[in-house]
Amino acid sequence: MNPIALLTDFGLTNHFVGSMKGAILGINPKAVCIDISHGIAPGDIEAAAFMLLACFRDFPPKTIFVAVVDPGVGGKRKPIAVKCGEYFFIGPDNGVLSLACEKAGNAPAIRIIENKRLMRIPVSSTFHGRDIFGPVAAHLSKDIAFSAIGPLTKSFVQCSLPTTRPVSGGIVGTIVAIDHFGNCITTIAVSDIARLTGKDLSVKAGAKTVALTTHYDSVKPGKALGIFGSAGFLEISVNRGNAAALLKLSRGDSVRVFSR
Amino acid sequence: MNPIALLTDFGLTNHFVGSMKGAILGINPKAVCIDISHGIAPGDIEAAAFMLLACFRDFPPKTIFVAVVDPGVGGKRKPIAVKCGEYFFIGPDNGVLSLACEKAGNAPAIRIIENKRLMRIPVSSTFHGRDIFGPVAAHLSKDIAFSAIGPLTKSFVQCSLPTTRPVSGGIVGTIVAIDHFGNCITTIAVSDIARLTGKDLSVKAGAKTVALTTHYDSVKPGKALGIFGSAGFLEISVNRGNAAALLKLSRGDSVRVFSR
Amino acid sequence: MNPIALLTDFGLTNHFVGSMKGAILGINPKAVCIDISHGIAPGDIEAAAFMLLACFRDFPPKTIFVAVVDPGVGGKRKPIAVKCGEYFFIGPDNGVLSLACEKAGNAPAIRIIENKRLMRIPVSSTFHGRDIFGPVAAHLSKDIAFSAIGPLTKSFVQCSLPTTRPVSGGIVGTIVAIDHFGNCITTIAVSDIARLTGKDLSVKAGAKTVALTTHYDSVKPGKALGIFGSAGFLEISVNRGNAAALLKLSRGDSVRVFSR
Repeated sequence: MNPIALLTDFGLTNHFVGSMKGAILGINPKAVCIDISHGIAPGDIEAAAFMLLACFRDFPPKTIFVAVVDPGVGGKRKPIAVKCGEYFFIGPDNGVLSLACEKAGNAPAIRIIENKRLMRIPVSSTFHGRDIFGPVAAHLSKDIAFSAIGPLTKSFVQCSLPTTRPVSGGIVGTIVAIDHFGNCITTIAVSDIARLTGKDLSVKAGAKTVALTTHYDSVKPGKALGIFGSAGFLEISVNRGNAAALLKLSRGDSVRVFSR
Repeated sequence: MNPIALLTDFGLTNHFVGSMKGAILGINPKAVCIDISHGIAPGDIEAAAFMLLACFRDFPPKTIFVAVVDPGVGGKRKPIAVKCGEYFFIGPDNGVLSLACEKAGNAPAIRIIENKRLMRIPVSSTFHGRDIFGPVAAHLSKDIAFSAIGPLTKSFVQCSLPTTRPVSGGIVGTIVAIDHFGNCITTIAVSDIARLTGKDLSVKAGAKTVALTTHYDSVKPGKALGIFGSAGFLEISVNRGNAAALLKLSRGDSVRVFSR
Repeated sequence: MNPIALLTDFGLTNHFVGSMKGAILGINPKAVCIDISHGIAPGDIEAAAFMLLACFRDFPPKTIFVAVVDPGVGGKRKPIAVKCGEYFFIGPDNGVLSLACEKAGNAPAIRIIENKRLMRIPVSSTFHGRDIFGPVAAHLSKDIAFSAIGPLTKSFVQCSLPTTRPVSGGIVGTIVAIDHFGNCITTIAVSDIARLTGKDLSVKAGAKTVALTTHYDSVKPGKALGIFGSAGFLEISVNRGNAAALLKLSRGDSVRVFSR
């Protein structure tokens, strides 16, 4: 059974996540749902797109990702489903799927969800997680043909992350997420620093310059460091502390890696 | 396997939800649990009753709902189980089940939970979610006879929602919930406005009068609207914004629908 | 299928819990994961150790507990797995497992996790929940031999709870947790008060002396009481109220039980 992994901005205080799962189980009683997170800030497409990028490889092949951060629900944006590499991605065509799909495989097959037999009828104008995205995922988890979803289309809306760009003697990226522990995750991937020469790389974040290292414990508790985190992106961290708070870093701040 | 849908005020910082599920799996290792929400404010029976009303239809037939908002746990209130329409509802007899049961079907069968063989022994005086309600749901999900739970009773405690009442040229209801997005959900159902004549219905909420429309995008971003939401109740919303914050609306505030 | 019960300080705003479950399902697609809590404060080993102690008995035999509160991840602390009584416990060797293991059975078998074939490769230095602890639990849930995990070791790191000690005419303990409802859970277990004579036991917490009773409703709403809670520890509670707020009690405060 393909697992269905859910990422939304629904929060956990309301019944929305439960209702979406109820709709899924109504179609496939054996569906296995995993929550990625429902704590995306309302309407924050970029944060959801980056989180999906950061984690999709942690899930088994054939996982069906459902990402519903959908401030335009009921409007003109299309619901889409994408088959890409070994994965499926379902959500609104507003960029939320794009960062993961770009990395998940070549030549994604993108279909516009039009098949009403795969939807919960009547379709509301305010809750397509329950009425369209969840139900389509449930049908896919029962192995309907991907082509049954609707017609192919050539492209999807892109989410534009802040860019990572080379500078003299280094590379500059941007903090795109602050995690629960205060780690500041940047756009700089391992591959981005391959071209940098010199063994000792340093990282400048805010007013602070810290060493690029491989373990939190390589510095004393309370001290800052740069480290490639579990998703393959450079993070600014504090050993046993909260980097965002201690270094006064925020999403959008620039970070520079350079060789001394 | 009938799914078990859980709604409580336990929060997610403690182990209470996990312990309830552990007790359920100890009885039925194949039980499928879905969380509706555990974010009801402690003891807020009305909020839980309304949430259950708003979402129970999103779940498949035979779903067993367990609603534990139970400030009187260990006291005189009875534990009950209700078979109603295609659903089962389990919880304390304090009104938390009543709004959904009234709508789920005619002639609900109400049983007082007395069969100790269906409980986790010894039964604590402070955690009936783990010791009574969860275990009874687990046994029901294994298809024990509903009659095994305990004796029939004729009525349950009612939760009294603020009323919706007709006024000259319109109808007045009350905001009963503010959701995660700031949408203000009222007691006014679609059926309540059927008698209103005139094509152009407006909604007055606080100092603001807004159009009753069918899509968030029917107004510009940042503008307010009235819309029948995914649970069939009138909501005051702001397109891509937080209506409660922007319009300074609170639970308990009156809302009026009228034809111009 | 042995259930896998998860307790972490990962929070629910990021993808970490989802990624850990994704890794588990990649190894055992039929794994059943239950969340105990992911709301432990970052790095609060004592709180997690106490929560695991408070709830492990609520889960069925053969449950595999995975407790990841791991501020030393990637450093020198060992990953361990413990077979104890009817349960398995997996996590870092920093004390987080110790309180539950001490109570779960005699002569725990403790193994250092060294078998790389049970890990997600490459193992990151920052996310062993996904790369080591979750995967080992997934393999265990498929019934690999416990001995395959790695070599035996003789002891694990202990978590030292504040002690409970007898005083003249009574016993003194410490508040170790405040729950979601404001109940103040102490280190004093039922067995600790067995030696106290006199029928009427009282509890002194902060400036307040309250009766030790068996039901919240034994006092009027808004009034304080002492009660042995669902995990077998003395709690200071307020009937239909928040004891921590109303009595100004905090974690670390002393509580005394005495006979009048």
